[in-house]
Amino acid sequence: MSKLAQLKSRMEQLNALHAATAIMDWDQQTYMPKGGASARAQHLGILSQLAHETFTDDSTGELLEGAKAEIEPGSNDAAIVRNVKRDFDLSRKIPSDLVGEKSRLSSEAHESWVHARATNDFASFAPTLERMFEIARQEAEYLGYTDHIYDALLDMYEEGATAADCTRMFDVLKANTVSLVKDIAENGKPVDDRVLYGDWEVEKQRRFTEKLIREIGFDMDRGRQDTAPHPFCTGWSVGDIRLTTRFKDYLGSAIFGSLHEAGHGMYEQGSPMEWDRTPLAGGVSLGVHESQSRTWENIVGRSKAFWKRYLPSLRSEFLALQAYDVDQFYRMINKVEPSLIRVEADEVTYNLHVLVRFEIECDVLTKKLDVRDLPAAWNAKYKEYLGVDVPNDSQGCLQDVHWSMGSIGYFPTYSMGNLLSYQFWACLRRDLGDTDALIEKGEFAPILGWLRENIYSKGKKYPPKELVMQVTGKPMGAEDYVTALNAKYREIYHLS
Amino acid sequence: MSKLAQLKSRMEQLNALHAATAIMDWDQQTYMPKGGASARAQHLGILSQLAHETFTDDSTGELLEGAKAEIEPGSNDAAIVRNVKRDFDLSRKIPSDLVGEKSRLSSEAHESWVHARATNDFASFAPTLERMFEIARQEAEYLGYTDHIYDALLDMYEEGATAADCTRMFDVLKANTVSLVKDIAENGKPVDDRVLYGDWEVEKQRRFTEKLIREIGFDMDRGRQDTAPHPFCTGWSVGDIRLTTRFKDYLGSAIFGSLHEAGHGMYEQGSPMEWDRTPLAGGVSLGVHESQSRTWENIVGRSKAFWKRYLPSLRSEFLALQAYDVDQFYRMINKVEPSLIRVEADEVTYNLHVLVRFEIECDVLTKKLDVRDLPAAWNAKYKEYLGVDVPNDSQGCLQDVHWSMGSIGYFPTYSMGNLLSYQFWACLRRDLGDTDALIEKGEFAPILGWLRENIYSKGKKYPPKELVMQVTGKPMGAEDYVTALNAKYREIYHLS
Repeated sequence: MSKLAQLKSRMEQLNALHAATAIMDWDQQTYMPKGGASARAQHLGILSQLAHETFTDDSTGELLEGAKAEIEPGSNDAAIVRNVKRDFDLSRKIPSDLVGEKSRLSSEAHESWVHARATNDFASFAPTLERMFEIARQEAEYLGYTDHIYDALLDMYEEGATAADCTRMFDVLKANTVSLVKDIAENGKPVDDRVLYGDWEVEKQRRFTEKLIREIGFDMDRGRQDTAPHPFCTGWSVGDIRLTTRFKDYLGSAIFGSLHEAGHGMYEQGSPMEWDRTPLAGGVSLGVHESQSRTWENIVGRSKAFWKRYLPSLRSEFLALQAYDVDQFYRMINKVEPSLIRVEADEVTYNLHVLVRFEIECDVLTKKLDVRDLPAAWNAKYKEYLGVDVPNDSQGCLQDVHWSMGSIGYFPTYSMGNLLSYQFWACLRRDLGDTDALIEKGEFAPILGWLRENIYSKGKKYPPKELVMQVTGKPMGAEDYVTALNAKYREIYHLS
Repeated sequence: MSKLAQLKSRMEQLNALHAATAIMDWDQQTYMPKGGASARAQHLGILSQLAHETFTDDSTGELLEGAKAEIEPGSNDAAIVRNVKRDFDLSRKIPSDLVGEKSRLSSEAHESWVHARATNDFASFAPTLERMFEIARQEAEYLGYTDHIYDALLDMYEEGATAADCTRMFDVLKANTVSLVKDIAENGKPVDDRVLYGDWEVEKQRRFTEKLIREIGFDMDRGRQDTAPHPFCTGWSVGDIRLTTRFKDYLGSAIFGSLHEAGHGMYEQGSPMEWDRTPLAGGVSLGVHESQSRTWENIVGRSKAFWKRYLPSLRSEFLALQAYDVDQFYRMINKVEPSLIRVEADEVTYNLHVLVRFEIECDVLTKKLDVRDLPAAWNAKYKEYLGVDVPNDSQGCLQDVHWSMGSIGYFPTYSMGNLLSYQFWACLRRDLGDTDALIEKGEFAPILGWLRENIYSKGKKYPPKELVMQVTGKPMGAEDYVTALNAKYREIYHLS
C-alpha cells in the first residue's frame, strides 16, 4: 500500500470521527433532550481528543512526507496532500500545552462571558479576556508571520489572508459606507417596516422557507432543514447537508436566515460526489463560504425581482401583508439602520461592526490598547463609524461569543464574504446577462449552475486567493461591493 | 494508573464510539435524507471497525487480567470486569476470518432475502440461508457448549439461557396456549375491531401517545419520541433515551408501539445516573428488556383499568370511537386471532410464532431439517400450532429479517420477555396490592418505582438468571404467564 493510499485511509477514518462529532453537535442543537447534555459533552470530548491524537501523531507526518514523493503536481492527490499538510502544520506548530491551556480557558471564559454579559460587568470578564488575548499572541508566535501578528491568526480561518488585506478592504469600505449610512440617515426617505414584526404562525413560516430554499436549488434529497436557537449549516457528506433556521417575531428572521444557510448548504452540496469524505470536499474558506450565504440571502433574496416572484405567495400565507406591494416590501426588507448589534445589522452597516472588531483586535494584540480600555475604544468607534451611542457593554463589546472562545482573527472573514459575494456576482452577471429576469421567473438553475461550475465544484482544490483570481481575474477587492450597494441603496432611499 | 482505571478509561472511549454509531443509526431511521445513505454506511463501517479493533486488542485482555487482581468480589467494579470479560471472550473466540465472512454474507443475504420475499422465491434465498446456518454452526463450535449447539448461540443474546430452558418454556406454552387459541376460535364470543382501522390524524396520534408515555413515567427531559418506519428504542446515556413510533391505519399501532418502546426506554432511564457511560448501565439482556416493554404495552396498556382512565380522552380526539364504551374497547384491543405474521400477532398467539422459529432453528442447526425443506416444515407447524394455512413463503418463512442478518438463536428471547413480564408482575402485585386501582387513577409512580427498585436500578450488575432469582425467588417459568392469560382471555371471550 502506497504512503498516499495509507494517508487517504487515515483521512477517511478522521472524516468518520469528524462526522460523528458533527452529527452529535447537530443533534445537540436541534433535538437533544436537556438530560443528554452531560454525556454529550463527555462523548464529544473523547471523540475530539481521539481524532486530534490520531491526526497529530508523528506517523501522519511520515505518511505526508512519503505521499509527497508519489503525487503529480496539480493533481487532485496533490491538493489532498497540500490540504492535509496545512492542517497538520497548523495543529503541530502549537504545543499541546498551549492547546490544553486554551481549551481550559475557553470553558472558563465562556462562563465568565455569559455572566458578564448578563450583569453588564465587563470588569469581571477583563482578566480572562486578557489571558485569551495573551494566548492568541503566543499562538501567533508559534504559527509565525512576516508582517503583522494578526496575519498568523487570520490565516487559520482564511488561508493566506493578511492584516494588510483587511486594512485595504476596510479603507475602501470606510470611505464609502460611513458616508452612505450618514446620507441615508440624514436625507433618505424613511422606511417603516413595523408590519414585519408580529406573531407569525410557525408552521406557515416553515412551509414557506422550505419552499424558498427548495426552489432556489437546495437539494432536499441531500439535506434537510430543522429548527435551532441559532441558525447554522453543517454536514458530513456531500449527500447530507443540514440547515437550521429559527422562527421569531421578525418575519425576515426565518426567511433570510433560511436563505443564508441554504447558500452555505448549496456550496457544500456542490462538491463533486467522488470527492465525498475526502479533504477536497466542502467549502474552501470562511470568507468564500460566507460569500455564498450572502449571495443567496442578500443579492438574490433581498432583490426586488425575487419578491416580484414570491410576495404573492407570502401574502397569501400571511394576511397582515396583503396591503403591501412589491416596492414597499422591497424597501422594508432592505431597511438601513445603524444599530448596536452585529447579528441584526443590515447589509450596509454590517461591515462597520466588523471593522470595529478588527481594529480593536489589532490594537489589543499589539498592546496599543489595554483590555481594560476596550469598552471605551469600542464605544468611541461605534459613535464614529455608525453614529450610535452604546448604552452599556452588554449591547457593546460583550455582545459576541467569539473572543470568549478564543476566536481572535475570525471577524474579518464576515466582511470578506460580503465583498466576495458581489465580486463573484459581477462576473456571473457578465456571463448570464439579465439575472433579475431569471430570478423573477424563478429560473435559478443557470445561476446555481454558474456558481457550481466556477466555485462549488472546485471544493477545496485551490487555496482561496487562487480561487478568487481564477473566477474573477483579480484579488479580492471592495469595488464591486461598494458600487452595487451605492446603486441599490441610493435608489431605495431616493438619494441622488 | 491502576489496570482497572485504564480498563475503565478504555471502556469510556468505546462507549463514546458506540454512542457515535448509535446516534448515526438513530438519525438514519428518523431524519436522514436519502442522499446521506452512502456516506452513513461508510462512516458506520469505519467507526464500528475502529471500536471492534480497539476492544479486541490484546491489550484489553491484559488490562482485564490486571484488573481482576484489583477488585473486591461483589463490588460494582467486579461486575464491570465480569461484563467486559464476557464481551471480550465472545468477540475473541470467533476468528476474525469468520467475522468478516459473516459480515460479507449478511449484506449479500439481506439483498437476497429482500428479493426473495418480494418475489415469493424461497429457492433463490435457500443457498445463502444454508451458508448462514453453516456460519452459525461454526460460531457455536468456536464459542463452545455442553449440551446443545443452540446453547452457544442463544447465550449471545440471553446470557446463560439454554435450549433446555426454551424447551421447558415452550412445552408449558404449547400445552396451554394451543388449546386456549382453539377454544377462543371455536367457542369464544366474536370480537369486531374494524372501527380501529381508519385514516387517523397523525398529529393527534402523536399528541395522544406522547401524553400516554409521559404519564406512565417516561421522562421527556431525558428522552424523546420521533417517527420511524419500524419502532425501536435506542440511547447513548441514562439521560438521553430515544423512542420511535409509527402512525398507521390501525390505531393500536401507534398506541401500543409507543407504550412498548417506552417500556424499553424506562428500563434504560432507570439505571443509576452514576453508572452512566459505564458497562453497568442499561438493560441486562434481551429477554429482561422485552419483559419491560411487554409489561407497559400489555399488562398495563391493554388492561381495562388503563382504558377506564384514557378512553374518554381518546374518544374526544377521535370521534369515530364515540359510540364505544370501555368494555367494548377493551375487547377490541385484546382481540385474539391466529394469523400469519409474527409482528402483528396478539399477546396469546405471539409465542406460537416464536415456537415455530425455535424448533426450525434447532432442526436446521442439528441437520435434522434441510434448508430446502424449511418452507414445508414451517407451513406444517403453522397449521398444527396456529391452525392457519400459509398461502406463500413471503407471508411464511420469509417474513422475518433475522436469519438474513445471521441472528440465529435470537427469537426465543421474545417469548422469554412475555413470560418474565407476568412473572415479575405477580411479585409486583403481591407487594403493591390492587394495581388496577392504581392504573385507573393514573398512579403509575408506585408501579414504576417498584420496577426501578427491583429491576431497572440494577442495570447490568447481575447476570439475567441471577436477577430473575433475586426478584421472583424462582427461575423463569411459564406458570404466571399461563395463569394470567387464561384468566384474562377466558373472561374476554366469555369462556368457562
